[in-house]
Amino acid sequence: MLVNGKKYQTIWLHPNDEKTVQIIDQRKLPFEFSVLDLTSTFDVYLAIKEMYVRGAPLIGITAAMGIYIALVNEFNVNNYNIEDLRSKAEYLKTARPTAVNLAFAVDEMLKTIEKTNLYGEALKKAKVKALELLNKELEYCYNIGNHGLKLIEEISKLKKGESVNILTHCNAGWLACIDYGTATAPIYFAHDKGIKVHVWVDETRPRNQGARLTAWELQQHGVPFTVIPDNVGGHLMQHGMVDMVIVGSDRTTLYGDVANKIGTYLKALAAFDNKIPFYAALPSSTIDWTMENGVKNIPIEQREATEVSRIEGINNEGKLDSVYILPKDAPVANYAFDVTPSRLVTGLITERGICKADKEDLLNLFPERK
Amino acid sequence: MLVNGKKYQTIWLHPNDEKTVQIIDQRKLPFEFSVLDLTSTFDVYLAIKEMYVRGAPLIGITAAMGIYIALVNEFNVNNYNIEDLRSKAEYLKTARPTAVNLAFAVDEMLKTIEKTNLYGEALKKAKVKALELLNKELEYCYNIGNHGLKLIEEISKLKKGESVNILTHCNAGWLACIDYGTATAPIYFAHDKGIKVHVWVDETRPRNQGARLTAWELQQHGVPFTVIPDNVGGHLMQHGMVDMVIVGSDRTTLYGDVANKIGTYLKALAAFDNKIPFYAALPSSTIDWTMENGVKNIPIEQREATEVSRIEGINNEGKLDSVYILPKDAPVANYAFDVTPSRLVTGLITERGICKADKEDLLNLFPERK
Repeated sequence: MLVNGKKYQTIWLHPNDEKTVQIIDQRKLPFEFSVLDLTSTFDVYLAIKEMYVRGAPLIGITAAMGIYIALVNEFNVNNYNIEDLRSKAEYLKTARPTAVNLAFAVDEMLKTIEKTNLYGEALKKAKVKALELLNKELEYCYNIGNHGLKLIEEISKLKKGESVNILTHCNAGWLACIDYGTATAPIYFAHDKGIKVHVWVDETRPRNQGARLTAWELQQHGVPFTVIPDNVGGHLMQHGMVDMVIVGSDRTTLYGDVANKIGTYLKALAAFDNKIPFYAALPSSTIDWTMENGVKNIPIEQREATEVSRIEGINNEGKLDSVYILPKDAPVANYAFDVTPSRLVTGLITERGICKADKEDLLNLFPERK
Repeated sequence: MLVNGKKYQTIWLHPNDEKTVQIIDQRKLPFEFSVLDLTSTFDVYLAIKEMYVRGAPLIGITAAMGIYIALVNEFNVNNYNIEDLRSKAEYLKTARPTAVNLAFAVDEMLKTIEKTNLYGEALKKAKVKALELLNKELEYCYNIGNHGLKLIEEISKLKKGESVNILTHCNAGWLACIDYGTATAPIYFAHDKGIKVHVWVDETRPRNQGARLTAWELQQHGVPFTVIPDNVGGHLMQHGMVDMVIVGSDRTTLYGDVANKIGTYLKALAAFDNKIPFYAALPSSTIDWTMENGVKNIPIEQREATEVSRIEGINNEGKLDSVYILPKDAPVANYAFDVTPSRLVTGLITERGICKADKEDLLNLFPERK
């Protein structure tokens, strides 16, 4: 998508240096935009651990690129051996232990590379595989965008071309993926096609991914939006100011329960109460085909208190700073995700099409999982 | 309630100087605690306008005290006339135009004072009336506390003395009233009686009244609490971690709809979805006996964007500061309240007792309104 009028993805091979991977440093967005070079396993580990990159799909691809980077910069024909590569791979996996995509991408890379003992061939296979995984993620988002676009087109027709108001929570945008995003892909596609859309961007406390990243993404690409505190969505829905909700999903169960950023469940309740369609947009890689009851069984990560008690922004001198916003020593709870039960979900927008949030419909779309 | 171990109310006559009213300056709480003297109409106007004091009951009492302060410091036997007092009263009313209690309290004061032309008598009447209004507010909260206490006691018994987990939104605490608070009164009374309680304090973006004021109040009084982002309550309710919700009300309709701080509706939906009792605690002065459909008819104030885009707190040098948290020029919407329809409200805790959120039950409690 566009940044300062120029097309970007979140990660790419350096155009003039095949030994370098470049990423957008997302830590200081929207206040500073910068591109970073990754040239070692440690660079990649740090980029994932310290959240230079975030979002399950992007984390996976960064790790896959990390394996290639390790091979190209830290091995040569003389010292190459799969055992050392495996230990680097394990190290990369520890950067964000809960991200399923990370381990999956690293294992995919290893499976491919293990087929040879020759350094040159391993290196070639690694590069091809990493780019293949990247392109697959890109394709997933592209397809999600095209399927979701139809939903927006329908509402736009019903509204006779009046702007379609879409509420989203957190950042399931292109910054979390390679490009397009998941929840945002249908929005970008609609906007680029000339359909009038307007996005209500939930701030998404405590980490403010909506206010910081989604708002920035949409602004850079020229999509009309308004930032709202997380408390506001219900009121807007009561008053006909939201036509649909699209969110991402960190994990989706076989029965259609959706684990996503904390607060998603509250918006789903409000959408249901006001008969507003509520969609989760997700690549099928986030579907947990073995899990039935998401509310009961999906473990919810608790994160550090400082994410709640400190907020980062630009101070009065124009510098990046943070302030502590609670009474001294106030106890804090910081649950990162919640689970929206399938009964509140109108549908799932996947790379293969849109289905109801239930087992039967999901398996019709993915019959190989039956 | 207690502050640094000492009993406080939010407003009082100076113990050694009858020409001075003292208030807690709430603007810098929880970061700084200070007491301010009010000795002129302008002081009082500023205290209300600039939110040194806030909360409908406290605003009303401050204005009533303001009329007394005007009389005692700005008039004497030679220059006293009701017309000049009336114009000061009108000026006070403009400090927060939407607060019903403000106009009501000022008018009550004038009605009393108008009964005489004599300065000395007017002054005496003003003082008596202001303190009478103050004591009435105090009594309302006290009674709300006692009625609500029974609900907490019942849950405590069912839980065999295990801590009762109560979620609250915004600050309907003693800082918004004279003492005790509305939503917090039952909690303080339970705690002071030795019943184990724990409060989930919604941060309450954008102005963070929960994180700043409710958390501070509870901490100072020694009530166990945990601050949570507004997104978290639904997840806690899904997992049996909330036993009841108590919120305040800025306006309650004859049919039991509750207008309260933005985000209240979302918590009510989650409580309903998880079969958790949801109560609004309110003095009957907030009931609008003429209004039926709150969602349709209660006008919702929109406030400045900077409340969303800037957050105040303590910076790394330990000083009060603020940071701007959005992409430059990002548009913002800031609706201050929402309306929870009566179907989601388990009951109303009023100064006369607890009733269902419907016309029949409300009128049984307040038969003079039939």
